Formats: sequence, structure tokens, C-alpha cells
Amino acid sequence: MNYPSGIKHTNNSNISKDIKYDNRGMTLENEINSANEYYRLMDKAYIYKKPTPIKIVKTDYPSRDKAVIKEAYFTVPSTTDYNGIYKGYYIDFEAKETKSKTSFSLNNIHPHQIEHLKNISRHKGIGFLIVRFTTLNKTYLLLINDLLEFLNTSERKSIPIDFFDKKGYIIKDSLKPTIDYLKVIDKVMEGNNGK
Amino acid sequence: MNYPSGIKHTNNSNISKDIKYDNRGMTLENEINSANEYYRLMDKAYIYKKPTPIKIVKTDYPSRDKAVIKEAYFTVPSTTDYNGIYKGYYIDFEAKETKSKTSFSLNNIHPHQIEHLKNISRHKGIGFLIVRFTTLNKTYLLLINDLLEFLNTSERKSIPIDFFDKKGYIIKDSLKPTIDYLKVIDKVMEGNNGK
Repeated sequence: MNYPSGIKHTNNSNISKDIKYDNRGMTLENEINSANEYYRLMDKAYIYKKPTPIKIVKTDYPSRDKAVIKEAYFTVPSTTDYNGIYKGYYIDFEAKETKSKTSFSLNNIHPHQIEHLKNISRHKGIGFLIVRFTTLNKTYLLLINDLLEFLNTSERKSIPIDFFDKKGYIIKDSLKPTIDYLKVIDKVMEGNNGK
Repeated sequence: MNYPSGIKHTNNSNISKDIKYDNRGMTLENEINSANEYYRLMDKAYIYKKPTPIKIVKTDYPSRDKAVIKEAYFTVPSTTDYNGIYKGYYIDFEAKETKSKTSFSLNNIHPHQIEHLKNISRHKGIGFLIVRFTTLNKTYLLLINDLLEFLNTSERKSIPIDFFDKKGYIIKDSLKPTIDYLKVIDKVMEGNNGK
């Protein structure tokens, strides 16, 4: 069996099995999975993508030790896609891409995911969103408390990119990993965020 | 794939949605899920069971907004079943039942799950196993470092119940939740473990 990387790849997109290790054309999800793999290899952090939640309706057992799922449906996740541990801190986040050049629609995030990140933050975890504006090739990390500030002070159904520039953190492209988001978390931890 | 115990649990959680809030006859998994739900309700901890990892081979789209998985297989999980946050600490564990009255077979735990818990512990998370001896109606919490001590000092393929009595913590039945495992974690945090 192709473990462990095979399993992770299975989790990461389930359907597409072509994972490109070149930055060009890599989806945000694949880049984050590669970064997490790199962090584990370096013994820096243990952060995983959760498996896609499904509801199984029908399972066949053609032989004693083999089960085949014959009918199942995707279900709404209760939490976020990624969580784990870094420097003793509980880390929890959701990652989303948008083609828009001007704003990030809040329809991309389930209200219960925001609620979840709020709970995490209140319990001294580090909760955030990673949002990529694919057309602009810009990737931001937005801490949950900054997102909540937006929600509390605005009626808008989408977050303008100005808000990301003001309150978020740009995640610069790097070589290894291509998306070194823990570098931003280091800044946040140091309180040296320049915001 | 020879993955008996995981499949059994999967069927319990994904197919049957009847969660019994009565202790009698409840599986360990259902009890832990109820406990986690209770902890969330009390705003005490945010710990979730991860979805069962599967590999999707075939998906149909009978209508635009509905996907049906027509062929999928259970895969070996990369990590453990449960993780989350409690008192600012990253919590990570695996839960298993055994019918044996004398020992817990290490075949129940994948080596990479032990490796994962070891990584978590080294990074200042709290990693452990919850093991229920169903015939004896005894449930233990065993910290990963105690499990590692066993593995480092014994050639045995199963952990005798004596070891659980000596190094583990009994999780006493309680009313709400029926399995109050965080009470044991409180003791561990206080260093008041009497071991």
C-alpha cells in the first residue's frame, strides 16, 4: 500500500489523483497539503487535512476482508478542513480560492465553520482562513478575530480585498514549501505583525 | 483491505444515525461522540471525530447539485480518530474496544498511529488511547508516553491488563457525559495522578 503519502493524497481531493509538485497550476489545497507534508518531514508541525465527510448508504462485502461502498453522499463538514499542532498551539483553518479580483464572498464559508473558528480562538487555539485570489495570484491569511471584526461592523455579504490588505497577512510565494503559511503564524505569535 | 475494526466502527457511525443516550449497549465510539457533544454544549472543549477516510473511485451526477458516490473504498487513516482543543492544549487520541479479558492486542493500533501520537506528545500536545475491555466493562485512558514505555521495554504483541492498571487511568462511568474522559486529563494536567 502506498502509505503515508498515498493516504494523504486520497484525503486531499479524493477524486483527482494527479498531484503536481510544481507550483504552477497547483491548487491551493494541493499546495497546503505539500506544505503540511514538508512541515512534518522537518518535524516542525503536525497539521493534516481532514477526510471529506460522507454519509454511507450502501456497502457491499464481496469478500470477507473487502468492503465496497456502493452508495454514499457528500455531507456538510461540521468543522474546518485543516487542524493540527504547531509549537504546542492548536491550529485550525479553512482554505478557499476565489476568482474575483475585488472581494471574497462569505457564501464560501459555512456559518458553522465561522462559529467553530470562534470557539477555537476563545479556547486559545489559532484559527484563521487562507484565501487565494487566483486571478490576482495573491494569497492572504486572515485571523478569525479580524474576520469577526468585519462581520460585526459590516452588513456586506463579501469581504473586499482592501480589508485583506488592511487586516490580513500576505503569504508570499516561496520555494519550499511553496506556501509557507506558518511563517505568518510565527509573526502573529511574536506579536510582530506590523498591523 | 484487512481493516476490520475500522470498518465496523464506520458502519456504526455513518450508516446508523440512532445515537442512544443511554449507556447500556452504547459503543465506545458513540459514548465518546456524546461526551464531545456535551463538552461543546458546555463550552468546555472542542473535540471532534474525524470523518472516515475513503478513496472515491466513481461518482455520478444525476442532477447539477447532487453527487452520488457509486464506488469507494475504506482507506487506512493517516492519523487518529479524534482531535481538538481543551484548555488551550491540542488533544489527540484513538479509541478501541476489545473483548479480551486479559490483554489489548497491539494489532488494534496501526504503527503510524503510534508514531503520530508520539509526534503530538513531542510537540506538547496531549496524546493517548482510550481502551475499553467490553467483557470486563472497564475503560482505561493510557497516555502515549506510557504506551511507548511499554513498547520500549516489552516484546509482547499485546498489552496485559495489569499494565493498564499500573500505568493507565480508569475512566469511571458517570451520568453526563457517560464517559467523562477529560476528568482524567484534568488530573494529568494537575500532575495529581497518583501513579
